[in-house]
Amino acid sequence: MLFLEIKYLKMLKTIAPSKSETEEIIQNNLDYTLFSWSKQKGSNPIAVKYGEGVYLYDYDGKRYIDFSSGLMNVNIGHGDQRVTQAVVNQMQQVAYVTPSCVTKVRGDLGKKLAEICPGDLNKAFFTLCGATSIENAIKLARLYTGRHKILSRYQSYHGSSNGAMTASGDPRKLPVDSQQAPNFVHFDLPYAYRWEYGNENLLKDSIASLERIIAYEGPANIAAILLEGQSGSSGCFMYPQGYLKAVREICNKHGILLIIDEVMSGFGRTGKWFGFEHHGIVPDMIAMAKGLTCGYLPFGCLMVSDKIAARYDDNVLALGLTYSAHPVSCAAALEVLNIYEEDNLIENAKEMGEYLDQRIEEMKLKHPSIGDWRNQGLLGCMELVKNRKTKEPFAPFNAKPDEMVVMNKVAAKIKELGMYTFVRWGFIFIAPPLIVTKDQIDEGLELISEALKIADAEVV
Amino acid sequence: MLFLEIKYLKMLKTIAPSKSETEEIIQNNLDYTLFSWSKQKGSNPIAVKYGEGVYLYDYDGKRYIDFSSGLMNVNIGHGDQRVTQAVVNQMQQVAYVTPSCVTKVRGDLGKKLAEICPGDLNKAFFTLCGATSIENAIKLARLYTGRHKILSRYQSYHGSSNGAMTASGDPRKLPVDSQQAPNFVHFDLPYAYRWEYGNENLLKDSIASLERIIAYEGPANIAAILLEGQSGSSGCFMYPQGYLKAVREICNKHGILLIIDEVMSGFGRTGKWFGFEHHGIVPDMIAMAKGLTCGYLPFGCLMVSDKIAARYDDNVLALGLTYSAHPVSCAAALEVLNIYEEDNLIENAKEMGEYLDQRIEEMKLKHPSIGDWRNQGLLGCMELVKNRKTKEPFAPFNAKPDEMVVMNKVAAKIKELGMYTFVRWGFIFIAPPLIVTKDQIDEGLELISEALKIADAEVV
Ligand SMILES: Cc1ncc(COP(=O)(O)O)c(C=O)c1O
Ligand SMILES: Cc1ncc(COP(=O)(O)O)c(C=O)c1O
Repeated sequence: MLFLEIKYLKMLKTIAPSKSETEEIIQNNLDYTLFSWSKQKGSNPIAVKYGEGVYLYDYDGKRYIDFSSGLMNVNIGHGDQRVTQAVVNQMQQVAYVTPSCVTKVRGDLGKKLAEICPGDLNKAFFTLCGATSIENAIKLARLYTGRHKILSRYQSYHGSSNGAMTASGDPRKLPVDSQQAPNFVHFDLPYAYRWEYGNENLLKDSIASLERIIAYEGPANIAAILLEGQSGSSGCFMYPQGYLKAVREICNKHGILLIIDEVMSGFGRTGKWFGFEHHGIVPDMIAMAKGLTCGYLPFGCLMVSDKIAARYDDNVLALGLTYSAHPVSCAAALEVLNIYEEDNLIENAKEMGEYLDQRIEEMKLKHPSIGDWRNQGLLGCMELVKNRKTKEPFAPFNAKPDEMVVMNKVAAKIKELGMYTFVRWGFIFIAPPLIVTKDQIDEGLELISEALKIADAEVV
Repeated sequence: MLFLEIKYLKMLKTIAPSKSETEEIIQNNLDYTLFSWSKQKGSNPIAVKYGEGVYLYDYDGKRYIDFSSGLMNVNIGHGDQRVTQAVVNQMQQVAYVTPSCVTKVRGDLGKKLAEICPGDLNKAFFTLCGATSIENAIKLARLYTGRHKILSRYQSYHGSSNGAMTASGDPRKLPVDSQQAPNFVHFDLPYAYRWEYGNENLLKDSIASLERIIAYEGPANIAAILLEGQSGSSGCFMYPQGYLKAVREICNKHGILLIIDEVMSGFGRTGKWFGFEHHGIVPDMIAMAKGLTCGYLPFGCLMVSDKIAARYDDNVLALGLTYSAHPVSCAAALEVLNIYEEDNLIENAKEMGEYLDQRIEEMKLKHPSIGDWRNQGLLGCMELVKNRKTKEPFAPFNAKPDEMVVMNKVAAKIKELGMYTFVRWGFIFIAPPLIVTKDQIDEGLELISEALKIADAEVV
């Protein structure tokens, strides 16, 4: 059928371009394209030439271990040519059909997702990314319930489009604050490390606080509660054990839908298919993206219960986008799901997560700057503090540039030493591809250990 | 390097699956996936097996001429394996990097788009689709101007996410009306066929009416005016000649940004790279998607003027999405742009558009149900009426099911005869791929002619 030329990849690695080619690549990017969430000047971006497994390589031959799997999405690692093959096979048949047509791959993928998802979550509405999954979840929750309010958590992220961003409890929304969408309500959920009243009270108080807010807002006005399956880029704040179960019960009681955002925590990232599976619940909708195609192609999905879907057997489902159920993205997703299973990646995530936890406990003994470590599977975050007693953070929520001086040095060191990972405020995220080995975890942690000396020196 | 096996495609065409395989494919799609903007039951979707040029083929070997280029996006036609080759080449290097990293293809594509766009529109912020381009345009306009209102047109479409949908003047927004985003203002722009006061007054009155609304809303509160480069799915309503130029002047006078949505009208569709080029203006931002990759992969772009971009040299650009500047989508786009040029598709669109106009004039003589024909290049729309004198439409704006009886019959006939095209209310859209030939236009129009007999019979 089609043969991927493996030699081609090898060849690429050996030809090192002249310095001026690298410079031209970077200059074109800076001159003609815009960079997200940053100033356009003064950045020093990595020019990625190719990726393989847990590593990225730049044009000067420097290797970076990717300890955040891109943006916590490249779960199967870089450069897996099985996905390329699946993409080619589909593109040789048909690359695009309108969402009103059917393709074999769309049905196969829907069926596969229905098998993976628990309960009666059997209907897939295919989207393009996290934000478009969330947008459609919000819209469908409102259409289905006839209610308008959406409750979500401060310190959460759901995407950057108007609806998804308003639902988020993330400072990235603040610059356009006066244009937020109406009917979104946020609640606060403290996390154990910074909760002062005893672990045994955290669950009780969190639930009581949520119940009060629901009463104030009027339960009959609330279409849905939207929560991440496991907290991600806000800082991997673990739910108190029993929390999601209690939320599920509250939702049942009031006819409120429970939407779980598994964009970051889904697809093996936490050592199970979905983050919520650690909590023994079944949501009404699951928002998916990232790990669904592992970033090989853009894609997302809103998984909907049969109960909700049935309403639209004879009523118009007022959702849609040009690229819903894109055949090539469907093909990439189907192959990625096979790879998770074939290569036992979810089991590996669990095992490697346990190894990682154990190694970080050891690191804590050597590094006084590590205040807290929160992790499930391979979705982990280190919180750095200036003082373990006072827990004074190295950088606060939404830190200003002058509050980031030490953390910026730590981040620069990590990069210099040959690691790509996500550093935000006082947090260092550790979320390598699920294919990671113990040796690679050791290798990565050694680099972080080295960089942490900068923070350790500032501990008081 | 890599060889696409052409025989594979040929093989696919000859193996006709058993009836039960087709049925299984359709059933899986219906059982496990959700369909946009429709009831889930009772639909009779086309199961597309492969596409080639202007044709789609189903699993039973039936051929459909695609007279709306998918959703007016597959401008280069189906099955062009040059795009597959470009996709494979990129996937063999690196499929995904985070938007903070640079890749060669991202810079090359940015540069190419800067060449294609007029004026100082030189900076590309890459997105995933039309809606995400519009969302970012809205956000950036507000951030840049510090103003909050966005003005847009009734009878327009900009996408289905909260911000883009609120900006749209399309009934698809009505089901979630009470949850629309704030600070969007719509204005009405009549179209020539239904304007009763003489063509010479249409421009004057439209501009006066817009100026009044700007005064009522307060020009200093208005961040941007958002308009399609040429009206698309609302009915291809032509701007009065001089209209966009006058809008550009109004914007200049008040410091309002002009955002042109070229998602549907861009990339040769109207016989020029962009629809607005027929009007001698340069906008401040261009929203792109569809024709940028012709649907081969999901992709979009917001093109921004140097003047606006410069503000973010030293200020944080508060925009972002996981799949901004996706390397594989960038590679597909770059190849698609080459194909437009190599194959002279934009010239062909212009020529074929003129031939189409001429053929439809002939059809009008035979078909009393054709009330109006509006077209530029290959973005055309036929409006059917029950009576040419009274102009009573066969179906009104946002027609209810019982108002669609005749049009549904016409649409079903078109499909039965072997055509896929977009029929909405009383409109039949004609927007074939830009590779279309005169023979193929004749072939398609013959089918439409046949179906129009149903409407002709109802003319009074
Ligand atoms: C939990 C969660 N939801 C949604 C999103 C938004 O995804 P996207 O950037 O693909 O729109 C993200 C992105 O990081 C996320 O972490
Ligand atoms: C003019 C215009 N803008 C935006 C969109 C939305 O594009 P998408 O469906 O890719 O979000 C469309 C879709 O038809 C469109 O025609």
